[in-house]
Amino acid sequence: MPEDSMEKTYTCTAPVNIAVIKYWGKRDEDLILPINSSLSVTLHQDQLKTTTTVTTSKSFQEDRLWLNGKEEDISHRRLQSCLREIRRLARKRRNDDDLGLDSTCLTHKAHICSINNFPTAAGLASSAAGFACLVFTLAQAFGVEGELSGVARQGSGSACRSMYGGFVQWLMGHQSDGKDSLAQQVEPETHWPELRILVLVASAERKHVGSTSGMQTSVQTSYLLKHRAESVVPGRMVEMIKAVRRKDFPAFAELTMKDSNQFHATCLDTYPPIFYLNNVSHQVINLVHRYNRHYGETRVAYTYDAGPNAVIFTLEQHIPDFIQAVQHIFPPETNGEEFIKGLPVPHADLSEELKRAIALEPMPKGISYIISTKPGPGPCVVNDPTQHLLGPDGLPKNIVRRHSSERDNGVKHTNVS
Amino acid sequence: MPEDSMEKTYTCTAPVNIAVIKYWGKRDEDLILPINSSLSVTLHQDQLKTTTTVTTSKSFQEDRLWLNGKEEDISHRRLQSCLREIRRLARKRRNDDDLGLDSTCLTHKAHICSINNFPTAAGLASSAAGFACLVFTLAQAFGVEGELSGVARQGSGSACRSMYGGFVQWLMGHQSDGKDSLAQQVEPETHWPELRILVLVASAERKHVGSTSGMQTSVQTSYLLKHRAESVVPGRMVEMIKAVRRKDFPAFAELTMKDSNQFHATCLDTYPPIFYLNNVSHQVINLVHRYNRHYGETRVAYTYDAGPNAVIFTLEQHIPDFIQAVQHIFPPETNGEEFIKGLPVPHADLSEELKRAIALEPMPKGISYIISTKPGPGPCVVNDPTQHLLGPDGLPKNIVRRHSSERDNGVKHTNVS
Repeated sequence: MPEDSMEKTYTCTAPVNIAVIKYWGKRDEDLILPINSSLSVTLHQDQLKTTTTVTTSKSFQEDRLWLNGKEEDISHRRLQSCLREIRRLARKRRNDDDLGLDSTCLTHKAHICSINNFPTAAGLASSAAGFACLVFTLAQAFGVEGELSGVARQGSGSACRSMYGGFVQWLMGHQSDGKDSLAQQVEPETHWPELRILVLVASAERKHVGSTSGMQTSVQTSYLLKHRAESVVPGRMVEMIKAVRRKDFPAFAELTMKDSNQFHATCLDTYPPIFYLNNVSHQVINLVHRYNRHYGETRVAYTYDAGPNAVIFTLEQHIPDFIQAVQHIFPPETNGEEFIKGLPVPHADLSEELKRAIALEPMPKGISYIISTKPGPGPCVVNDPTQHLLGPDGLPKNIVRRHSSERDNGVKHTNVS
Repeated sequence: MPEDSMEKTYTCTAPVNIAVIKYWGKRDEDLILPINSSLSVTLHQDQLKTTTTVTTSKSFQEDRLWLNGKEEDISHRRLQSCLREIRRLARKRRNDDDLGLDSTCLTHKAHICSINNFPTAAGLASSAAGFACLVFTLAQAFGVEGELSGVARQGSGSACRSMYGGFVQWLMGHQSDGKDSLAQQVEPETHWPELRILVLVASAERKHVGSTSGMQTSVQTSYLLKHRAESVVPGRMVEMIKAVRRKDFPAFAELTMKDSNQFHATCLDTYPPIFYLNNVSHQVINLVHRYNRHYGETRVAYTYDAGPNAVIFTLEQHIPDFIQAVQHIFPPETNGEEFIKGLPVPHADLSEELKRAIALEPMPKGISYIISTKPGPGPCVVNDPTQHLLGPDGLPKNIVRRHSSERDNGVKHTNVS
């Protein structure tokens, strides 16, 4: 890397998060200020992460962005919000502190390259991990420190929660400038070591209403959403934080299921209505309730974001048995070899009593695979330069050349290493 | 019929109704008092009706009941409520008026025989037509006149609305004894002659949560239901009555769709959640919204009760075109010959523009057939004695002998004539 071009390259990773008290509806579209607080669990990056490399150089003519191997339009409003905010904070820091920081890079353009290690088809909010990773990596490149969730929030609301590991709340705030609408860690990822997470990827793909336009329509048309945001969520936030702190699984699980159901209820109360749950989702929900009823205690919980894939919470000890129940109702396409990805799952035998208690009609291939994971840490700096996604020329290494028509087909992208 | 046994036989029919402002949730389980008012359209008995014959005789040892050809337990609490109320009103009338009414039958036992001319699979609330017909026919047999919806309500809440034709509201009332929780006709069936109704019977049958236990769980667990009942429905009742009186189809249609969606939203907000809509229902909803969007006006509305079958409202002029759109998305199993039952539907050609505008993936055989009907009158007396379902021996004529395992398989029952 020639010193005189003053190139600097940083690579970081950031996690996906899944809300257990849902965010749905903005009170300010530009600043991305929500109508209620929310709470999420950060998923482990060993299974699901975004990796982003930022190179700044005097020699770059303009900011450029590559997402999953394809160059994207950098002028996207929310990308510009994040770039502008990070540069503003960098200038502010230089002016405030005058610590002799190397300020030359402030005028440099940035090349940004980002990839996910999980398929779009997993239906997980890749924008949360993506914007969290973008903001975290830009902050490294431009020498910005401190609270960054307010910047990530301006890329994608839920991205602010991906700035921390473990259990994270996004306080809605009340100021009109959004300065108090920030994420906070409630407990770190080490707090509840027994907690496990399964993503059940439903095979039937459908086109969905995007969450941005969906929540806009909900705010405009649903009477129930307003009531939920004002009268239901505040109490649930208190209860959920209590349940997390006490590691009270039944309380955590029931609140998680109720809040997922209420979010989807407000989608149905939207006009025209929005459906994210399909027959497979309904079957998973029925399975979970019958499973819990059979054991006489709440051992498993589901939650659904803006798509049909269930995210399951349970404790480590129940994983083998519950996975057998899932495979019983959703016989996999393969012989189970590639059905479970991620953290290994010990084998268990399914009892005849449980089979009889579930009594649901099997839906073969209804679930295409399961990602087995657990709570994980927030964004990380990658110190190994061989992991950079941009080469010394400032362009993506090993670029995967794809046509835009292939962009959203759910092909699994692997890390360029 | 030997005179000395003092047998008397009466046969009546009563209609099905479909709510456009939904009833879901009771404030009193015994008296069946609802948590909100509701409004329905009575469907025409040419397509959908219950027929009931009541014979009273000195020679009968006990009250007996046959439903769709099979003897049922008469001790069912709600049946007993209706029998007790009618006999109480009959005694009251004799005591009040002392008009020299023939009062001997008051001590007689009743044989009751009832059949539906529509399959259980149609998913229409047969209990509404059934209890309305029972109460109406018992009233004939015991010489009771006047307001009977309060009695029918004690058989099945929505039965009170089947006591009138056309457009009917059920005023929730406020008294604890339920005396003011009654149905009222808003407009007769002749009010809006262009209005047409289609029942789209979804082929996939699933076991559903019954409405009695479902609404109990909703009242106990859904925060949104309470808000709906108290803060949303009162305004909607006013708007709906206005729309009906003005024959304002877009206003009627939009309110109907929104209220159906909100009812199903509260089912989803119930814990454990209740799903009545399946993938076929979702597809019909999407079809209706795209159809309306294509024409730039609200020509068609859907509503769903506690099941996956859509009830469609539209105006006569749009029926042929909309039916083509339905057949395009749900190619029928048969060649269309038996696909449409009831009021005949003229043929139309489906435009390429509409096909492109709908752009939904076809679901072959998703709908097994359509019942084409319109608003109709309330309960009627059948004067032709050959139509009685009970013979001179007080037992069902032409009894269809079926095993109880066949009871709910959706076989079409025809009138015994």
